[in-house]
Amino acid sequence: MYRHTRELQFTAKPEKPDALFAAKFQEILGGQFGEMTVMMQYLFQGWNCRVPGKYKDMILDIGTEEISHVEMLTVMLARLLEGAPGETTEKAAAANPVLAAVLGGQNPQHAIVSGGGARPTDSQGNPWNAGYIIASGNLLTDFRSNAAAEGQSRLMTSRIANMTDDRGVKEMLAFNLARDTYHQQQWMYGIQMLVEEGFAESEIERSNGDWEDAEAAHVFYTNEGSRAGEGLWATGNSVVDGQPFRTEPLRPLTDDQGILPAPDPLQYVTYDGSQGPGKPGNAVGGAVQQAENVVTKVKDAITGDKH
Amino acid sequence: MYRHTRELQFTAKPEKPDALFAAKFQEILGGQFGEMTVMMQYLFQGWNCRVPGKYKDMILDIGTEEISHVEMLTVMLARLLEGAPGETTEKAAAANPVLAAVLGGQNPQHAIVSGGGARPTDSQGNPWNAGYIIASGNLLTDFRSNAAAEGQSRLMTSRIANMTDDRGVKEMLAFNLARDTYHQQQWMYGIQMLVEEGFAESEIERSNGDWEDAEAAHVFYTNEGSRAGEGLWATGNSVVDGQPFRTEPLRPLTDDQGILPAPDPLQYVTYDGSQGPGKPGNAVGGAVQQAENVVTKVKDAITGDKH
Amino acid sequence: MYRHTRELQFTAKPEKPDALFAAKFQEILGGQFGEMTVMMQYLFQGWNCRVPGKYKDMILDIGTEEISHVEMLTVMLARLLEGAPGETTEKAAAANPVLAAVLGGQNPQHAIVSGGGARPTDSQGNPWNAGYIIASGNLLTDFRSNAAAEGQSRLMTSRIANMTDDRGVKEMLAFNLARDTYHQQQWMYGIQMLVEEGFAESEIERSNGDWEDAEAAHVFYTNEGSRAGEGLWATGNSVVDGQPFRTEPLRPLTDDQGILPAPDPLQYVTYDGSQGPGKPGNAVGGAVQQAENVVTKVKDAITGDKH
Amino acid sequence: MYRHTRELQFTAKPEKPDALFAAKFQEILGGQFGEMTVMMQYLFQGWNCRVPGKYKDMILDIGTEEISHVEMLTVMLARLLEGAPGETTEKAAAANPVLAAVLGGQNPQHAIVSGGGARPTDSQGNPWNAGYIIASGNLLTDFRSNAAAEGQSRLMTSRIANMTDDRGVKEMLAFNLARDTYHQQQWMYGIQMLVEEGFAESEIERSNGDWEDAEAAHVFYTNEGSRAGEGLWATGNSVVDGQPFRTEPLRPLTDDQGILPAPDPLQYVTYDGSQGPGKPGNAVGGAVQQAENVVTKVKDAITGDKH
Amino acid sequence: MYRHTRELQFTAKPEKPDALFAAKFQEILGGQFGEMTVMMQYLFQGWNCRVPGKYKDMILDIGTEEISHVEMLTVMLARLLEGAPGETTEKAAAANPVLAAVLGGQNPQHAIVSGGGARPTDSQGNPWNAGYIIASGNLLTDFRSNAAAEGQSRLMTSRIANMTDDRGVKEMLAFNLARDTYHQQQWMYGIQMLVEEGFAESEIERSNGDWEDAEAAHVFYTNEGSRAGEGLWATGNSVVDGQPFRTEPLRPLTDDQGILPAPDPLQYVTYDGSQGPGKPGNAVGGAVQQAENVVTKVKDAITGDKH
Amino acid sequence: MYRHTRELQFTAKPEKPDALFAAKFQEILGGQFGEMTVMMQYLFQGWNCRVPGKYKDMILDIGTEEISHVEMLTVMLARLLEGAPGETTEKAAAANPVLAAVLGGQNPQHAIVSGGGARPTDSQGNPWNAGYIIASGNLLTDFRSNAAAEGQSRLMTSRIANMTDDRGVKEMLAFNLARDTYHQQQWMYGIQMLVEEGFAESEIERSNGDWEDAEAAHVFYTNEGSRAGEGLWATGNSVVDGQPFRTEPLRPLTDDQGILPAPDPLQYVTYDGSQGPGKPGNAVGGAVQQAENVVTKVKDAITGDKH
Repeated sequence: MYRHTRELQFTAKPEKPDALFAAKFQEILGGQFGEMTVMMQYLFQGWNCRVPGKYKDMILDIGTEEISHVEMLTVMLARLLEGAPGETTEKAAAANPVLAAVLGGQNPQHAIVSGGGARPTDSQGNPWNAGYIIASGNLLTDFRSNAAAEGQSRLMTSRIANMTDDRGVKEMLAFNLARDTYHQQQWMYGIQMLVEEGFAESEIERSNGDWEDAEAAHVFYTNEGSRAGEGLWATGNSVVDGQPFRTEPLRPLTDDQGILPAPDPLQYVTYDGSQGPGKPGNAVGGAVQQAENVVTKVKDAITGDKH
Repeated sequence: MYRHTRELQFTAKPEKPDALFAAKFQEILGGQFGEMTVMMQYLFQGWNCRVPGKYKDMILDIGTEEISHVEMLTVMLARLLEGAPGETTEKAAAANPVLAAVLGGQNPQHAIVSGGGARPTDSQGNPWNAGYIIASGNLLTDFRSNAAAEGQSRLMTSRIANMTDDRGVKEMLAFNLARDTYHQQQWMYGIQMLVEEGFAESEIERSNGDWEDAEAAHVFYTNEGSRAGEGLWATGNSVVDGQPFRTEPLRPLTDDQGILPAPDPLQYVTYDGSQGPGKPGNAVGGAVQQAENVVTKVKDAITGDKH
Repeated sequence: MYRHTRELQFTAKPEKPDALFAAKFQEILGGQFGEMTVMMQYLFQGWNCRVPGKYKDMILDIGTEEISHVEMLTVMLARLLEGAPGETTEKAAAANPVLAAVLGGQNPQHAIVSGGGARPTDSQGNPWNAGYIIASGNLLTDFRSNAAAEGQSRLMTSRIANMTDDRGVKEMLAFNLARDTYHQQQWMYGIQMLVEEGFAESEIERSNGDWEDAEAAHVFYTNEGSRAGEGLWATGNSVVDGQPFRTEPLRPLTDDQGILPAPDPLQYVTYDGSQGPGKPGNAVGGAVQQAENVVTKVKDAITGDKH
Repeated sequence: MYRHTRELQFTAKPEKPDALFAAKFQEILGGQFGEMTVMMQYLFQGWNCRVPGKYKDMILDIGTEEISHVEMLTVMLARLLEGAPGETTEKAAAANPVLAAVLGGQNPQHAIVSGGGARPTDSQGNPWNAGYIIASGNLLTDFRSNAAAEGQSRLMTSRIANMTDDRGVKEMLAFNLARDTYHQQQWMYGIQMLVEEGFAESEIERSNGDWEDAEAAHVFYTNEGSRAGEGLWATGNSVVDGQPFRTEPLRPLTDDQGILPAPDPLQYVTYDGSQGPGKPGNAVGGAVQQAENVVTKVKDAITGDKH
Repeated sequence: MYRHTRELQFTAKPEKPDALFAAKFQEILGGQFGEMTVMMQYLFQGWNCRVPGKYKDMILDIGTEEISHVEMLTVMLARLLEGAPGETTEKAAAANPVLAAVLGGQNPQHAIVSGGGARPTDSQGNPWNAGYIIASGNLLTDFRSNAAAEGQSRLMTSRIANMTDDRGVKEMLAFNLARDTYHQQQWMYGIQMLVEEGFAESEIERSNGDWEDAEAAHVFYTNEGSRAGEGLWATGNSVVDGQPFRTEPLRPLTDDQGILPAPDPLQYVTYDGSQGPGKPGNAVGGAVQQAENVVTKVKDAITGDKH
Repeated sequence: MYRHTRELQFTAKPEKPDALFAAKFQEILGGQFGEMTVMMQYLFQGWNCRVPGKYKDMILDIGTEEISHVEMLTVMLARLLEGAPGETTEKAAAANPVLAAVLGGQNPQHAIVSGGGARPTDSQGNPWNAGYIIASGNLLTDFRSNAAAEGQSRLMTSRIANMTDDRGVKEMLAFNLARDTYHQQQWMYGIQMLVEEGFAESEIERSNGDWEDAEAAHVFYTNEGSRAGEGLWATGNSVVDGQPFRTEPLRPLTDDQGILPAPDPLQYVTYDGSQGPGKPGNAVGGAVQQAENVVTKVKDAITGDKH
């Protein structure tokens, strides 16, 4: 359960408003790697976590902190938008090039939709969406995604920080940058502990590794003229089994030309007949297909055959 | 520039069709972490890369390989859809529960839209979109995103592999799993080389690190009852400066309650007047705001003052 | 069925073009609360309406009027875009700050995609989508959504009206504002009639009200320091049963800590084993689960037990 | 700032798992009117609120409670998914029609992507997006949107509650239904107080009401055969000024046929020349347009003329 | 302006309900090539059309007819959904495989969200969005897009028609198929007339054709082993100038390897320094760039030099 | 399978950077009709093609070329963004109106997200999505969509070409325009060959043409005052059967008023009872519906009756 306190986690006071900067600032609130993303990603990962105790608590502690970061950014945005041009301004703009730039570059939805408040969108106005986040239940892969998100988020915060001289904004961003520095390490230490405590075999996701194609797990495929074979990824050894990598020219490993089966005639797919007549996709065709599948499975079950 | 060869990179032949499995299989083609994602992510990163030679070549080599993976998956999908129920089938379904399940669970767009071919969507029918990918120009953060994407992608491939006994499907997935094992390492070796060759100070993104809030870069904030303080992320040392982390209860670091400035009166924002009358957001208000900004900046420039 | 007449419902003639204003104007055409939204929302509600006569007719009458409003706005937009900068303009911009602002602030798709015509998007270029609308079949909840949409739509129209001095634009917006004033009342009178005529018990959606948690229907949960308990929502009485509301501090009403069950081992979810081994999610596990469900249901049916 | 407590707000324990129901249950978590929507809508409204004290606190109190509701729903979902079919199941399905239905109807991403955990999507797999929410800064319109959202949300919760007999699920939904009953009233009392305390003139959004088209604010436009004129919305009086409404046949109020101006010749818009040659949209045309605008504005400013 | 009549354009009565078919039927209502798409595409094209008279009228006539088609489809959908499973059904499903399939395959939002009415989405639940439509102002390209949309729309209608034996559904689809046959021809005759009446030079969009790369307008680029050179597109003549096409192997036409310029140092883009130090992207760098541009332009203007 | 070569297909060197133009240029890379669209559309069509030999090869040849076009555009974009304003610039802007315009009009994600590289979005920042593309398996309809896409793409390229005087940009666009000229013809010749070689009966999609409504395939429906009846589409003959078209006033062809059936009582749809009590949508109602359907089908099968 969650509780709210009136104070922000950290001060969010710009020295002065700046509507043009506010438009850009939306990126670290509602963008692909903005604070809404890490907030929702960590909350979903925490709620879905099956290791109660320090892992679940850690994920939810940081997820909870991120709600407060989203709050701080929205307050900063509303303050940056104070007095932003929202009404007829043409005459003034004619005399003031900076105002003209603001008119052109400000986010019109800051005036029209949110009335001078933050928007749940990125710097181009795209609404935040849950296609940005992942909670797979597998802490190794999720922590790696989290470390990546913190890195990207920190980079974009840095770039935005360089777009202003406002001491108030920079003071808050100095806090945010520091948290991103810390959080990157937090997720990487998390991966280290998962391995040390036996929750993962190694730092490499390798489920079903017993039957993966061992050969293909050691080759770098390269194109003509490429110098990529000079890197450790091609000259080093696999951290999984210590065997050396090698480089091969990218080439087909099969003579399969991807010729497709005959189509369902009632779907009017253009077809030259070279694979024989299409199986009808109606009850008969479907039943035939399924019967085949089931028969094969039953036979497999009897003979104990499996991949 | 790109060239095409008729042969696939690897065989993509299922033993037999399976429309229900095909619906799920779409996830690793057009999902958040499907092959379309890594293909487009690596291509954009490669094209945007500013380190010609082994780095740019490596990114483009793997991006090019991923086009071939997308091709393989589409062929596999079309073959899995052979004879899939596409027409009236109620009577047959009444007599065949597996067919009934297929009717319910198959992707209707496989019959209606693509005529038995692959769709550029995930297993729930969401069209692939570029909000899944990132190409920041910073190879450290991008390689970390790539390693994360390969891990998630491999995990989902593994889960799907466990949903079928088809030897043909499994043979291709054994190849894909192996490539994901290899590629995870490739990106991690890439990060190691970036540091060794001086393209990054450490494995932590830390631009503008000179003025980040040093204090906040070492604290784990925790909630009541949380056991998260037991982890290395709270008991270890910063890999940046070797200083120890510490744990603190999550609490406001400010008395700022996020009270917002007076709104523009012509935006009809509900307001109690407690911050005085709002600055009009018209030409006058806007100009005043900008003038303030410019004056301050000019003064700063003169006095050499900066953050 | 629908018919078209060449005349617009109302004049849509600006005094003069204004490309920058046109970019903002898109918000009330293709935005979350633009005219496309109310048009599609009312049409779907009307088509889905199960009360023929004055309710279905009223919804379709206004839905039909909204098609005409969308038409008016598109005409206004094309006229606002007359002579908008669409070609090389750098030299002129260097000499004209307002032109520079227009260059920066105009919607590039007005020039590139629609050739000076309206776009089906909002002021930030987001394409209109059907996730904005609702047609639930329940007229009480739908009329409430409609009143809300008219209020938001009117507010945004007002804000945009304040961004121009153009008498032609304002004349049309005076008409639109009036319609929104009228339509807000129309939907509220509609709710009043639904109750009077017995289509709804009260103005509150309360299906399954007989078994809802009566206690929880009267409590305002509040956080430390919050003054929210001073409002009528906390000090008044329920309009459903006349019982007084009361305020309580937000606290857990359970000791359930959200510990999740053991995961399917073949999905590689990180897990500490504390809930015992996971049920396999394959045929066996699934069948077991379903058997349990069915057995319980059958038993329930026999003993006549239900919630 | 936000804090977390390990206990849920309310118990979230189903009697038994049910993967098919879980797929539908996603609607009230991540759908258009799911709990993620009200959580994010209230948080953004609260953070943007300019009336500190009971209003801001009330919005944030309920926004905070909604985070806990999202948490409860995710826990319920993971528990409903226990043992859900995630691996090869064809043979079992052949013998068990309910299992077959589950195979067809379950959400494949529950198995493939989230590993048996909740997804931030609706019942059709659409990722939650911020285009669902509104925070306009105007409390009257926002409270109306909130009351509408609670009504729709409660209706959908009711419909879902009727899809299961599980006592555990129903116990939690009884709590959720009750909160939605309460919250609908909370927002309506909020509107009442806004008017009583002078934050809004009436319950109707009517900014710029002084110059809206008074005539058009009192007319119901109707189509041939429509019986909509029988409703209070056509026979009653305006709550704004007490004047009676009236009904008129829908007809053009202008002879404007929407003929568009000549296009920019360099945009290759098909055009018959009937409006004369198009103004070039290059520097010259653009400058001319702007000059006209500015000249008019300056003249207006001198003569004191405005709409 | 638009008017409504109570009667549908064509009967929309199924013989009997069919919830599973209804789920698929959504594709031709709210899919990429559903009736909502052609309705909105033609309306926007008509409103934006600059050739009053037969062209504008024709586009709006058909756009108006499409509103009526959307209406018909929504009515058909609600009738197909009569009595669809919306409540607890497990026991019945256990005894009835077809019911089980329906449970799995029906659209859950038909029960939860729209209460048995049509949804503005496709067969996979994706909300309709305006990214599907185009209104470019150029009638040649728009008519070609319209003919394509009618063809795709007809094909998908045909595929869906083959999924049912319901005579009522088929009767309506026989009407829809016929309209799509007619409309395909309508747009193609439209293109013919545009050329005959001089609105387009030929049926090929060829603006700026005077300076396009004449060479590249006649070559088919082919890959090793490809037999594509056997087609008329490679062996025929250009319809623009009558010159023959020819086939060439796909190869780089440049030695440009896409090496990028030095990045802005404050954006922390990984860079090897090989292009010299990056121009700062701040005021100084930006001003320098712009100055260069303007100076060059002015010089060009003086010397009369242009491409 | 695909291979990469370091050289671009064609030179992509602007004379000088231009950040404002780069923002617009994104439209032809990641817009609805940008190069990403044709690349992905042709690749999916080629992979799904069931006519091996010249058709499949041709589609894949051009799809492969389009990957190279996307590559060229990304390189051009990164070069246009050299030295683009990415840091604090207010003072400089105050003195330089063109810089001010650039500040306002540049794409903030070019600085914040991609670090001066191309973005996979359109000119308004919308991420590319697969809802733009189609691969239906039917080559006639797909080639028509392709010709349409090339036409729109060429038109937008032309419009963008007119927005710059840069000789380097124009040289590359001259190549792209030419390819679009050629490709339009390629797809039209493709349609011609499909008919000549018997893959399509005529250039009109007419599957299930034997039972379409022959009457409705020859009528143009028109509204009052419309002059659309003057066009060939109304005065000409059907290319399918040579019969003349005719014009009729748009009118209902039925007296069906779209009255819907009684709703499921447990879905709380507002209803006046005029259609009798609703069938419960639970097991009983659902089973009844299904039983009816199956019984009818079986009877149909016996009597040999079908549409």
